[in-house]
Amino acid sequence: MLAGAGTPRARAVARLRKGSDLADRLTGGDSSLLRRINAAVTLRALRDGQAVTLTQLVGDTGLSRPTVEGVIEGLVESGLVAEVEQGQDSGRQRGRPARWFRFRAEAGHILGVEIGVHAVRVVLADLAGQQIGSFARDVDEALDAEERVGAARTAVAELLRKAGISRDSLWAVGVGSPGIVDKDGSVRLGTALPGWTGLDLGARLRRSFRCPVLIENDANLAAIAEHWQGAAVGMGDVVFVLAGLSPGAGSLINGRLHRGFGGAAGEIGALHLLGQQVTPERLLSTTGKPLDPLDEAAVARVLTLAREGDLVARDAKERFLQRLVHDVAALALAIDPQLVVVGGWAAGLDDVLEPLREQLARFCLRPPEVTLSTLGEDVVALGALRLALDQVEEQLFAVDQPSGSRG
Amino acid sequence: MLAGAGTPRARAVARLRKGSDLADRLTGGDSSLLRRINAAVTLRALRDGQAVTLTQLVGDTGLSRPTVEGVIEGLVESGLVAEVEQGQDSGRQRGRPARWFRFRAEAGHILGVEIGVHAVRVVLADLAGQQIGSFARDVDEALDAEERVGAARTAVAELLRKAGISRDSLWAVGVGSPGIVDKDGSVRLGTALPGWTGLDLGARLRRSFRCPVLIENDANLAAIAEHWQGAAVGMGDVVFVLAGLSPGAGSLINGRLHRGFGGAAGEIGALHLLGQQVTPERLLSTTGKPLDPLDEAAVARVLTLAREGDLVARDAKERFLQRLVHDVAALALAIDPQLVVVGGWAAGLDDVLEPLREQLARFCLRPPEVTLSTLGEDVVALGALRLALDQVEEQLFAVDQPSGSRG
Repeated sequence: MLAGAGTPRARAVARLRKGSDLADRLTGGDSSLLRRINAAVTLRALRDGQAVTLTQLVGDTGLSRPTVEGVIEGLVESGLVAEVEQGQDSGRQRGRPARWFRFRAEAGHILGVEIGVHAVRVVLADLAGQQIGSFARDVDEALDAEERVGAARTAVAELLRKAGISRDSLWAVGVGSPGIVDKDGSVRLGTALPGWTGLDLGARLRRSFRCPVLIENDANLAAIAEHWQGAAVGMGDVVFVLAGLSPGAGSLINGRLHRGFGGAAGEIGALHLLGQQVTPERLLSTTGKPLDPLDEAAVARVLTLAREGDLVARDAKERFLQRLVHDVAALALAIDPQLVVVGGWAAGLDDVLEPLREQLARFCLRPPEVTLSTLGEDVVALGALRLALDQVEEQLFAVDQPSGSRG
Repeated sequence: MLAGAGTPRARAVARLRKGSDLADRLTGGDSSLLRRINAAVTLRALRDGQAVTLTQLVGDTGLSRPTVEGVIEGLVESGLVAEVEQGQDSGRQRGRPARWFRFRAEAGHILGVEIGVHAVRVVLADLAGQQIGSFARDVDEALDAEERVGAARTAVAELLRKAGISRDSLWAVGVGSPGIVDKDGSVRLGTALPGWTGLDLGARLRRSFRCPVLIENDANLAAIAEHWQGAAVGMGDVVFVLAGLSPGAGSLINGRLHRGFGGAAGEIGALHLLGQQVTPERLLSTTGKPLDPLDEAAVARVLTLAREGDLVARDAKERFLQRLVHDVAALALAIDPQLVVVGGWAAGLDDVLEPLREQLARFCLRPPEVTLSTLGEDVVALGALRLALDQVEEQLFAVDQPSGSRG
């Protein structure tokens, strides 16, 4: 189950006892703290989902058999662990039937939500992060903040209803939004959505849930998602570029999200305003009239025309590409990631990849790899789900009674 | 002495015993490991330089009196701790005279070295990081790599001779260099110095020292130095911009150096090559002929002329400033630091500050503070010194016999 049974325990001990004298305390009193640690370690040993015998748990956790028995009893009571019936072959030891246990990932659920310009998306998973449903709904780009938040609430309710999951079983909700998001979940700046700047999105959504609600910038969540199960698995230094008329980016450094001092890291879209260069809305226009920055359909039309050989559209696309290369190069030069993942507009980015690679190879002193997102339109919602899962893992890891530490 | 005596010990334990079962091991065997931890904890309690009694050490470390006595005996033998004579007033306890001890920061030394375009600089300090001497020597920008490394060696020898310090007493040497430096100390790319690209600078310098030699990019070290004792003390998210015709930058994120995946983070100078924009050598020229990128004197002349009201020079400076703003904005947008420190050219940057602040405030979604470096020409060498000091603190913290872990 666990590579080194002592490791999570040692980490839990170190975390919970920061500043205390380890040796004295571990051999001395404070047994309730020890019980919490022991429960967390036992859960860890169970968390990959396979059924495990009590004897295996004793081995994996390094705890005594009576201790594990006590811990398991509490976890079964709390609903986090279930005893499983198994065939009576290999499990037997000296005639005594082995008892098998498993983690009940279905004991709770988590949600990942994206509140976007054109759509609201929700994904639902169990406590192990296993996805069990999703729901998306187009919304009008002109919706005001109240209506947009309402659309997100409705989408959540719809998904829960379809999946037959009670709202009370939610342990954590992650939410992705465009703009600069403060740590408390309010939107410091969000020009892409009407009425978004200054919105206390966290407070609004927390009314609808009794569990923690975590808000994060959309591009940041996309980076997390690609690292979790997309194009950046196994890579710790990643920049995700959410390509658009005003591109945003999210970065992982050493596998951790880099939010920046004020949560604004990667908001590279403003770079073109310097030096009074032409805006991307004009760059991509084929008519001389600027495109609406939120009109992705119009952008897709231009990109399609360009692919079909339309000369004016090809020029426009070429100008746009140069801008994107410049923005991505700025990110790559500043951060020096191993990998740049490009996502966003579902269509039209395929032929951006090669020119981007070429130009970065020319101008970056150490060019990064460049690839397309593999997670499609759910990328932000999946990152939000991972954010919620992190919160749950923190809870599972540090307590024995989930109800004691929630909300 | 120490805020919480258990903290460093707990950390040392956690670090040395990663993956082991803490409780079992601490109460069980492996006393040599325990001795090492105890020595490190005792040294920590002594390291701020003040003399401390044995009784105080017992309190600060949480160790038993006989253990501390044994540890101190070993540390005195190794030269790292000295017994100090004190007046016989407050130190007495029940008639038994208190014994006082202090850390011998003079037991070893560290060096910080900058190998630059126009100068080689060296600073010397004791094991507590207290500076005890410095030496700088101008070098010709046209020196080849062999000559330049030789000049650094000579400068080191000169400073050691003047300070009366033996080379054998060096515990660690930090070295700053322009260019992209690999983790092993070789220069992956170094266009500012002739023959620098591909140079195995680490291997070259290690021949001259028996202690560890650590090589790092100059702007990275400048960021570390400003955080240590300059304009960025107490700030964990900092970008240092080494202004020049091709500016470089170093970043701290959460107080730690961000090198990037390939050590190239912050090498923003290439950004202007995109889009075939004019090079800074031309931007700053007042004659139509490009300036030599390494000719800082010529640059300083243009900046001085501009300050005196020369219109052509003012235009050139204005163009240069726009470029610098663009580069710094790219860094700020990508990384979102709390503070940008501008350094480099000793003269001529004063009136860069205000326009930089204004422009960043206009274009950054969350503008950083902007300030000038306070460490002057030694900034890179001081950062190199801090790098060496980190190495020494690692040694002091994890072992009882320094000679056992050196080299």
